[in-house]
Amino acid sequence: MNTNRVVIFDTTLRDGEQSPGAAMTREEKVRIARQLEKLGVDIIEAGFAAASAGDFDAIAEIAQTIKNSTVCSLSRAQEKDVRRAGEAIAAAPRKRIHTFIATSPLHMEYKLKMQPDAVIQAAVAAIKIAREYTDDIEFSCEDAFRSDIQFLAEICSAAIEAGATTLNIPDTVGYSIPSNTETFFRQLIAQTTGGEKVIWSAHCHNDLGLAVGNSLAALQGGARQVECAINGLGERAGNASLEEIVMALKTRHDLFGLETGIDTTQIVPTSKLVSTITGYPVQPNKAIVGANAFAHESGIHQDGVLKKRETYEIMSAESVGWSTNRLSLGKLSGRNAFRTKLAEIGIELNSEESLNAAFTRFKELADKKREIFDEDLHALVSDAIINPQEAFKYISLKIRTETGEAPIAEIVFTMNGEEKRSISEGSGPVDAVFKAIESIVQSGANLQLYSVNAVTAGTESQGEVTVRLSRDGHLVNGQGADTDVIVASAKAYLSALNKLHAGNHKIKAQGV
Amino acid sequence: MNTNRVVIFDTTLRDGEQSPGAAMTREEKVRIARQLEKLGVDIIEAGFAAASAGDFDAIAEIAQTIKNSTVCSLSRAQEKDVRRAGEAIAAAPRKRIHTFIATSPLHMEYKLKMQPDAVIQAAVAAIKIAREYTDDIEFSCEDAFRSDIQFLAEICSAAIEAGATTLNIPDTVGYSIPSNTETFFRQLIAQTTGGEKVIWSAHCHNDLGLAVGNSLAALQGGARQVECAINGLGERAGNASLEEIVMALKTRHDLFGLETGIDTTQIVPTSKLVSTITGYPVQPNKAIVGANAFAHESGIHQDGVLKKRETYEIMSAESVGWSTNRLSLGKLSGRNAFRTKLAEIGIELNSEESLNAAFTRFKELADKKREIFDEDLHALVSDAIINPQEAFKYISLKIRTETGEAPIAEIVFTMNGEEKRSISEGSGPVDAVFKAIESIVQSGANLQLYSVNAVTAGTESQGEVTVRLSRDGHLVNGQGADTDVIVASAKAYLSALNKLHAGNHKIKAQGV
Repeated sequence: MNTNRVVIFDTTLRDGEQSPGAAMTREEKVRIARQLEKLGVDIIEAGFAAASAGDFDAIAEIAQTIKNSTVCSLSRAQEKDVRRAGEAIAAAPRKRIHTFIATSPLHMEYKLKMQPDAVIQAAVAAIKIAREYTDDIEFSCEDAFRSDIQFLAEICSAAIEAGATTLNIPDTVGYSIPSNTETFFRQLIAQTTGGEKVIWSAHCHNDLGLAVGNSLAALQGGARQVECAINGLGERAGNASLEEIVMALKTRHDLFGLETGIDTTQIVPTSKLVSTITGYPVQPNKAIVGANAFAHESGIHQDGVLKKRETYEIMSAESVGWSTNRLSLGKLSGRNAFRTKLAEIGIELNSEESLNAAFTRFKELADKKREIFDEDLHALVSDAIINPQEAFKYISLKIRTETGEAPIAEIVFTMNGEEKRSISEGSGPVDAVFKAIESIVQSGANLQLYSVNAVTAGTESQGEVTVRLSRDGHLVNGQGADTDVIVASAKAYLSALNKLHAGNHKIKAQGV
Repeated sequence: MNTNRVVIFDTTLRDGEQSPGAAMTREEKVRIARQLEKLGVDIIEAGFAAASAGDFDAIAEIAQTIKNSTVCSLSRAQEKDVRRAGEAIAAAPRKRIHTFIATSPLHMEYKLKMQPDAVIQAAVAAIKIAREYTDDIEFSCEDAFRSDIQFLAEICSAAIEAGATTLNIPDTVGYSIPSNTETFFRQLIAQTTGGEKVIWSAHCHNDLGLAVGNSLAALQGGARQVECAINGLGERAGNASLEEIVMALKTRHDLFGLETGIDTTQIVPTSKLVSTITGYPVQPNKAIVGANAFAHESGIHQDGVLKKRETYEIMSAESVGWSTNRLSLGKLSGRNAFRTKLAEIGIELNSEESLNAAFTRFKELADKKREIFDEDLHALVSDAIINPQEAFKYISLKIRTETGEAPIAEIVFTMNGEEKRSISEGSGPVDAVFKAIESIVQSGANLQLYSVNAVTAGTESQGEVTVRLSRDGHLVNGQGADTDVIVASAKAYLSALNKLHAGNHKIKAQGV
């Protein structure tokens, strides 16, 4: 379809969640989905319904919550998968099933162990079943850029005939380059029967740093949907960054002549929310949403900017939502103001108990930190909503360190409802805390990554700690936030243990 | 020149250093230059000689140290600048002067306040003076992608006639898109008199996430040099990432047919060194050098990878230097082993005093941490080499925190040689330390950014803290490393204060 409207398909909650350790709770996914709706994305890929009961439930709740964006579930080209996807999205006013199968010789031979004809039959059968649930069907050819273009045209023609309305051509391994992508799309669309009736889509991975360049080239080659994720989250080096594609189209409207439905002033708040929830930091020199994206250090540049802003700025910081870091609440704010403010930033707590827990945490924080910002509230809610089934809960901590002596940590926490107290030395206070916890829990996990970021500027800021643990090839990220970085570290470690403990036995599909 | 050899021009030490707070000491710059030589870069842009005496000295020392790469200094198109550049690089076996002037109507009118003819004359005059020092001259047209292509052809023709051997076409504001970049280069080269005799170069910024795509497109349009930086460091959203360009050319040799002289197994060690020294973290989902770049979390992917590696991998982690994190030294290693190991990883300490200080730090660290890796040594040396002129030095720290009570920090440090002791409460132990320091120093600085990363995996790892302070619009990053994250925070804060105190009154040039 040749329009000038680009469909923005966000896969933060599906491909983004497949980043190591980025698994999110249902509540967190709903919070991000609400913000994506506010951002104005056309399609929210909410998960992969057949992967696990948890995935199914999260998609179903998002389908009940979201009104303005289409809610989508991924599914393999198998009847059971498709039916689970259809059931999960049933409540959504606008719904899409996204089914996929691999089309490259390498994937068909070694992964699927299927002949090309059988692959086409599986795709057609899956699409027909999907049509029982919705008319909005997307079909993806996994590893398309290493597939034979004749075979792609054949399977895409069959998919269109079976009822697919969007055809997605993923660069699954991040292998293409822009000039090649443009030609590939142009040729494939021309060779596909019915190619002019559907929307073509690109899904580009960033293994060579080319995901955004390839997505834009696909649009130049005739695509009108791009699949992307906030902060470029996703498998390995991630997906194309939503924010970069959208701002390239907007800033270079003279070259592309294409429109999106995105409210660009929601970009930075969305980026911060996704970073807080997944524990994935954004590097300062990241385009659009990095802390330096609009900072000029060079003397000459600053001089230029003072003389005329456009000398070194092609877009304004305000247009993507910077400088909207507003004071949120203060020490004297009451329960109602707190609840109203949470709703305003997209947080709806499901029970009075959760609200009480969050409000108590808020009062504690307001005692230590004079100014509470939106970012603080997101960190606090993530931290305060404790799943009653969780095995480990933080209670209190005592630290003594003195140069020349080994640091000592004494921690109190509950394990399956029972209070535990443990003391340990360590090479530093964080090490001492982790050792104290492990002397009781004996999880056998290894610490892979430890990082701290301040939630806001200023020395009173909360520290947000991410701890990545591995055990038997399984990775989890735990997060904790507190004005005391050692307490935040203890909470993050316990949060990671809870995730390890809960297990995560879902089938995961990269798919595309 | 139409060869299949791409010249890799690294500007980590010049454009990279212009990242807010990324200013490096001379010793740090030399260490990075040595690693860049090991990596096999063709040209090292070592700085901007006229910017400050410190810049000049760092370039001069790099010129004396580096044998296999060409050493380059940036200079504005002004006689004084060019002569300073020529003097700074004098000792290098291979040397280049890189002079630039703005060519876009916006920049000429508002920044330079010069007529186009005067701009051409200034460029020609600068190139002629530069030829007194070396035959290897690069000329850049700042903001080329917003310049008139006829005017660019005119100034480039004049530059070639005056003796320029490399013509650089920077996308200063990160404004171009790949298809446009390719056409632009093709047209400009064809329209420039003598265009076939010189090497054309791209210098792309990443404001829209397209720096790598544009650099590769420039090569397709006839360029044979790319300017890039490790980890994509640089102004705002940074420059094109060296590692992404090099691996795209290597992985897609079938499409480009181009070669570089880079030893790709040195990519990850170089990335880690630059990150440690500048305090700029690399996000996990960064291509090639991010922690996840080669991790597969998705079940389906892992299955595919097990069945046949190529299903989800287009390059191997080993080919870019991952998994070379080798045990370096242990507790019993002596002074000689220590010195030899440092030399092996590119660190040459200039005085016995520095070596002694570093060795003492090493012994302290080995007491707390059983395994010492290369990364630990880099962090340790950055931390141990204390400039005798520095105003603030860390001595010792004592912390007490207990849930329900305000954390208390007691710090001892020297200020201009005098010992100071200070106690403060805070919202957390880090806040208490910073407040204790500020109660004595009263710097008036604001904390902009605080982050901690573990230097290696494992709970005994050192924490590397970056503190960014601002005062009167001036930004500095301080770093500190220790197995105790609170001690590392104190060192980082004092390091930032030292940088603020030293002032940084250099002229900075983005230039290109």
